[in-house]
Amino acid sequence: MQFLDTYKNLFLDYLSANKFDKAPHNLYQPVDYILELGGKRIRPLLLLMAADIAGDKAVDALSAAMSVEVFHNFTLLHDDIMDEAPLRRGKATVHEKYDTNTAILSGDVMMISAYRFLENYEPKIAIKLLKIFNKMAIEVCEGQQMDMDFETREDVSIPEYFDMITYKTSVLIGAAIQMGATIGGLDDQSANHLYHYGKNIGIAFQMQDDMLDTFGEPKVGKQPGGDIIQNKKTYLYLKTLQLVSDSEKEELLVLYNTRPTDSSNKVARVREIMKSAHVELHSEEVKNEYKNLAFSHLDAVEMTDMQINQFRSFGEFLLRRKV
Amino acid sequence: MQFLDTYKNLFLDYLSANKFDKAPHNLYQPVDYILELGGKRIRPLLLLMAADIAGDKAVDALSAAMSVEVFHNFTLLHDDIMDEAPLRRGKATVHEKYDTNTAILSGDVMMISAYRFLENYEPKIAIKLLKIFNKMAIEVCEGQQMDMDFETREDVSIPEYFDMITYKTSVLIGAAIQMGATIGGLDDQSANHLYHYGKNIGIAFQMQDDMLDTFGEPKVGKQPGGDIIQNKKTYLYLKTLQLVSDSEKEELLVLYNTRPTDSSNKVARVREIMKSAHVELHSEEVKNEYKNLAFSHLDAVEMTDMQINQFRSFGEFLLRRKV
Repeated sequence: MQFLDTYKNLFLDYLSANKFDKAPHNLYQPVDYILELGGKRIRPLLLLMAADIAGDKAVDALSAAMSVEVFHNFTLLHDDIMDEAPLRRGKATVHEKYDTNTAILSGDVMMISAYRFLENYEPKIAIKLLKIFNKMAIEVCEGQQMDMDFETREDVSIPEYFDMITYKTSVLIGAAIQMGATIGGLDDQSANHLYHYGKNIGIAFQMQDDMLDTFGEPKVGKQPGGDIIQNKKTYLYLKTLQLVSDSEKEELLVLYNTRPTDSSNKVARVREIMKSAHVELHSEEVKNEYKNLAFSHLDAVEMTDMQINQFRSFGEFLLRRKV
Repeated sequence: MQFLDTYKNLFLDYLSANKFDKAPHNLYQPVDYILELGGKRIRPLLLLMAADIAGDKAVDALSAAMSVEVFHNFTLLHDDIMDEAPLRRGKATVHEKYDTNTAILSGDVMMISAYRFLENYEPKIAIKLLKIFNKMAIEVCEGQQMDMDFETREDVSIPEYFDMITYKTSVLIGAAIQMGATIGGLDDQSANHLYHYGKNIGIAFQMQDDMLDTFGEPKVGKQPGGDIIQNKKTYLYLKTLQLVSDSEKEELLVLYNTRPTDSSNKVARVREIMKSAHVELHSEEVKNEYKNLAFSHLDAVEMTDMQINQFRSFGEFLLRRKV
């Protein structure tokens, strides 16, 4: 997918031309710091791609692309405070490098700035973007709250888990595509189908990410088995509980109530139980169901086959990722 | 000002009809809690008044009035975390009653919800409200940052102090009036003059508030001499430093580096030094300069004398407050 790099580079140029770098510096330096930590830039890239496919409007969409990337990084910044995370992309988190008050306030100004990047559109488009953005942003907060609530709950169900990841991570993928398509001039109904395409691709992607976290190769800047170490109630964990014997279920519950300093034995044993339950097969199957649901929404979009195929190829590309 | 109660009641009815009360409850209960703590509701009231005077649109302005009130309470919520404040309006602050993570995330969802209340306007008006709101909200964050920076700085100048309170508190007063006038159908230039009217009234009001805090009667739910106890670098403090002898200046600097458990002697002595410098007279003079500046902007507004007089009466009323 060569053309994805084109969008990414377009966005990165815009990002460097729009540094926050101004007074009060204690407020804005952390904003530039987190925005420059890198990452795949998947949300702005998707927004630009959608605007480009829908109406050749990638350049016009840059401001909205900044909006979603700044919003995404705001959520990372505040989530890292709540999770007491020391590292983000292998570097010190903002609250570690500066302090918690700075992280709160710099996060706040990022969220507002995300809205400011929506000003650069004519009123009819801007209000559409505002509505898409508002709905998404509220759901992201609700997803984060569910995630925190789940930490202390023993009875999280699999449907509740999907609600949580849908809100916490997938609606932003959907909204980015919907915003791009709207800027590209697509009708509201088609743009809404693209939202559901993106949202369901996002859920499938999250499942893939969870599988990589638990069974994949260790990566730079990321703890291997991080979800297990943090006792995250992922689909893999919840489904394994359903699949295994009572004694293994008991063992898993006990392991998920510990936080050993050296977690290697814990990670190894949890992996072993999960593998014995063949939970990867179930996860792969559900991932494919979400992928198919995503693609079914493409059929309802008022675009040419060529345009639709670009979204399809992107989905295939994203969900083939093995590292 | 009987009619002010009409606006306040109109707003309070709307507020109770628009409770957040929904799932996830751990996210939204703290939002209703802080919104129901009360307060003068000065910002929504001003917004409704401006919409009413400008174009008989008080009812249409209710959604925007919620927006500014929800935003204002979001800033209180996050500021209270940063200040480690135990009480707000005589009740436990959100981070005390719940916890810090809750206060961060409930604050976040409040800020987004503030934007959601701007959706209820036709695109041309909505985009104007969005721009006014964005600029204001960013400045409020910058003001809060300046305030935090000032805590550890010994060399804060009086102009810097006015920049800080303008951003931290007065732009929201100005924006509320500008938004109301915009909904009322006033032209942009006149609405902008009303912004400057409100902003400068806000500065004068803040000066009055600081004088009441330091020299006024103790009030329920508020520590008397709270600014002195917290070593707040108000105009009264900064100006007194300029007016007194070197030995008293030294004494004041030392007192402002202490936080005694029993602060009554400290408060009494700081008040004594301030009174001996007649700083109240200076403060009253500067307050009147801002009031006059505010009123001068009314002369440039395209409205009837009767309309303008309503804003003037309101300013006189607000700045006469002695308790």
